[in-house]
Amino acid sequence: MNRIKTIETVSQVGKTVLIKGWVNNRRNMGKIVFLDLRDRWGIMQVVVVPNELDSESQQIIKDIRPEFVLAVEGVVQKRGDKQINNDMPTGTVELLVKKIQVLSQSETPPFEIANEDRQANEELRLKYRYLDLRHERMKNNILWRDKVIHFIREYLHAHDFVEIQTPILSKSTPEGARDYLVPSRLHPGEFFALPQAPQQYKQLLMIAGMEKYFQIAPCFRDEDARADRSPGEFYQLDMEISFVKQEDVLDLTEKLFTELVETLFPEKKISQKPWPRLDYDEVIKKYKTDKPDLRKDKNNPDELAFAWILNFPLMLPQTKEDTFHYAGEKWGPAHNMFTAPKEEDIKKLDKNPGAVRSYQHDLVLNGFEVGGGAIRIHDMKLQEKIWDIIGFTKEQKKQFAHYFEAFKYGVPPHGGIAPGIDRLLMVLLGEKNLKEVTAFPLTSDGRDPMMDSPSAVSKEQLDELGIQVKK
Amino acid sequence: MNRIKTIETVSQVGKTVLIKGWVNNRRNMGKIVFLDLRDRWGIMQVVVVPNELDSESQQIIKDIRPEFVLAVEGVVQKRGDKQINNDMPTGTVELLVKKIQVLSQSETPPFEIANEDRQANEELRLKYRYLDLRHERMKNNILWRDKVIHFIREYLHAHDFVEIQTPILSKSTPEGARDYLVPSRLHPGEFFALPQAPQQYKQLLMIAGMEKYFQIAPCFRDEDARADRSPGEFYQLDMEISFVKQEDVLDLTEKLFTELVETLFPEKKISQKPWPRLDYDEVIKKYKTDKPDLRKDKNNPDELAFAWILNFPLMLPQTKEDTFHYAGEKWGPAHNMFTAPKEEDIKKLDKNPGAVRSYQHDLVLNGFEVGGGAIRIHDMKLQEKIWDIIGFTKEQKKQFAHYFEAFKYGVPPHGGIAPGIDRLLMVLLGEKNLKEVTAFPLTSDGRDPMMDSPSAVSKEQLDELGIQVKK
Repeated sequence: MNRIKTIETVSQVGKTVLIKGWVNNRRNMGKIVFLDLRDRWGIMQVVVVPNELDSESQQIIKDIRPEFVLAVEGVVQKRGDKQINNDMPTGTVELLVKKIQVLSQSETPPFEIANEDRQANEELRLKYRYLDLRHERMKNNILWRDKVIHFIREYLHAHDFVEIQTPILSKSTPEGARDYLVPSRLHPGEFFALPQAPQQYKQLLMIAGMEKYFQIAPCFRDEDARADRSPGEFYQLDMEISFVKQEDVLDLTEKLFTELVETLFPEKKISQKPWPRLDYDEVIKKYKTDKPDLRKDKNNPDELAFAWILNFPLMLPQTKEDTFHYAGEKWGPAHNMFTAPKEEDIKKLDKNPGAVRSYQHDLVLNGFEVGGGAIRIHDMKLQEKIWDIIGFTKEQKKQFAHYFEAFKYGVPPHGGIAPGIDRLLMVLLGEKNLKEVTAFPLTSDGRDPMMDSPSAVSKEQLDELGIQVKK
Repeated sequence: MNRIKTIETVSQVGKTVLIKGWVNNRRNMGKIVFLDLRDRWGIMQVVVVPNELDSESQQIIKDIRPEFVLAVEGVVQKRGDKQINNDMPTGTVELLVKKIQVLSQSETPPFEIANEDRQANEELRLKYRYLDLRHERMKNNILWRDKVIHFIREYLHAHDFVEIQTPILSKSTPEGARDYLVPSRLHPGEFFALPQAPQQYKQLLMIAGMEKYFQIAPCFRDEDARADRSPGEFYQLDMEISFVKQEDVLDLTEKLFTELVETLFPEKKISQKPWPRLDYDEVIKKYKTDKPDLRKDKNNPDELAFAWILNFPLMLPQTKEDTFHYAGEKWGPAHNMFTAPKEEDIKKLDKNPGAVRSYQHDLVLNGFEVGGGAIRIHDMKLQEKIWDIIGFTKEQKKQFAHYFEAFKYGVPPHGGIAPGIDRLLMVLLGEKNLKEVTAFPLTSDGRDPMMDSPSAVSKEQLDELGIQVKK
């Protein structure tokens, strides 16, 4: 007999069916036993009346405990009016069992699965992530994550975008945060870096003529964690388009996410449509932050206040806290050194760089920055001027030799944006921490207690890579 | 005026339109200049008659060379019957130019773009990959790659699969090939490893109750390159399903790829449907290889001979060349130590492990292994027996402590497969090397000549990570 999903039983009243899943809980009512059987699609009440069972199953039922994996054959029957449970999708039916098979046993888990309110600490939840993911809320977060990403892919494909995987074994360049490094075995003493973002690759893809690129891209920054910043890896919707103006990028992004919210989260209300487009200076003056929470009612979990912040300064004075490795000169890029200055401000670059506005655009949602992007510089003379103002040395320019070279061969005007998938999901799903929307996150101090990584490796492995751990 | 795609001009005869793109080539015919303008969608013949141009454009036209980026405004006109070019999608029309704007200039590229038959060597092609990707064939390969992957995602979502991203900062375990290592800054002396495949994560996701998982997963093996094996990273369609038998996995995979080929590559012919399911011993006897090329006509580039190879031995004698780090004992897993032995053969495990057959399934296509998978062991006692036979020490078992722990809490029977995306594309697109279907591949000796990676990094970076390069 083919197994059906628990949720499918509601249309099978009177029929004999086979369901499989985990025991969510067990209640003994005298001789009768009630089991809740859980599969990915829901929970089904299973009624075990001893004399309805074959003799083997009568023995088996005695030992069954929560989290056992079972195959259960039985007859779907309507529940009595008083037994109907409208909180359960299968609440109108139950399964009268004829035959039970144990597919796998379970010890008592370190925390309860059926009870969502258990108070397991984060370390325990991550160590037993495969059990934590059995919780309804966590399972749904992972399913929603997939739905959101799939919607984005559908939408962008329908709008002529091509998804392209860019290298994960990439190059260390001074672009902002700290790099994760990967020693090369074939070239001892040299290292790959994991990409902080596919920034340069996406611009090179524009130079290659791909015109409309996106990628659900893994990004890696070796920075200390915050609730809204993952240690290790995170995902961004990396997008870049040729032959566009800033408002084209804003319009497309706005349409994509408006349609996403209205399709997948119809209960959510977008505070203002079209999204407000705000001036950086005015936002700072009014809210003292460049990521204001513009919800009308901050207690309404279903309100989504998207807004664009525009007209950022191109340059900011360098500070000691600056993560740019080439700090030391007076000016640093406010966002990213590839961001184009506003056309009308280019003339101020020489004498008053601090007064130059840029084509940067930040996307904020309920007080979180959920994306940033810009129209890029597509003229190497202007790029070099920017590098000079931020004080790039000859050596530092050399790290961008490939970029310099690429700009010789016909660069289309281009721009893009990179909304953070994890942070966006966190807000959409009403979670307070990125870990709740990631299948296997690291702890805040960058460990995976489940796999026990990072971990020591053998001397042979290090020897092959030509590196050693410093004493 | 909004820019339209070159391909859209065919329906705009008589209208004034704006197109943008790269100059594919320039032909001077006396005073008249013909430009071929290339965008992602095609090539458009542009006719420049000096006295049709505004005065500014008359100056501009003189300097325009191949690979300049232009915005061209003009009137679409039907070509004369003799000028119609049926090899070009826009071959029935041409654009009579009124106005030209140079968006970006270009030096002479290191190899020709318009001429596909240029003989650039691999090093040059990879150094200037952004120019190499401008070639029609390479651009199409990248677009096809996206179409194939998108089809797979569509199909699996329609079949209840959920895509889940598993960690890229993972753990080094003795599973087969050499790991890429990533030093941890927060835990000096310890390392993450890039995943050779998400093998353990996908099994943990089955234990978590996800039931049907897939991922277009980046995988990393630090092995020497071959034409059909990328150095560095590659992608696999990683799939795992709970509550299945081997034939369910085979049926699903077969339907997916059959529908994919028939939808996206209707000119291809699948040699045999359903795909032959062959016995390993018989295949070895008959073809002296476990990946036979079963095409009826090996000269037919459109023939696709898929086949399943089944009934592999579970164990093979260890050899010195074995990449398994725990070699040294008599037996090693023929594929993967999580592969389940056939039920009827379990009794032979103790006395004659070499005679035990497994639930491994390999997918071959035109002589390439394009995927492998298995029904997995879901019982820890059996898993431990396998580890003992292959000679795992206590220390080695400890590296799987998390796996051992996970198996205590209700493991569903499960199995899956992992077709190689790159290798499959290589065969489907008739290419001879994986590099032709990858946007930014490494060279065979593991370098990226474009980014110049791997590369030296600063002493400060290494100090922070607590490692040093061996002298």
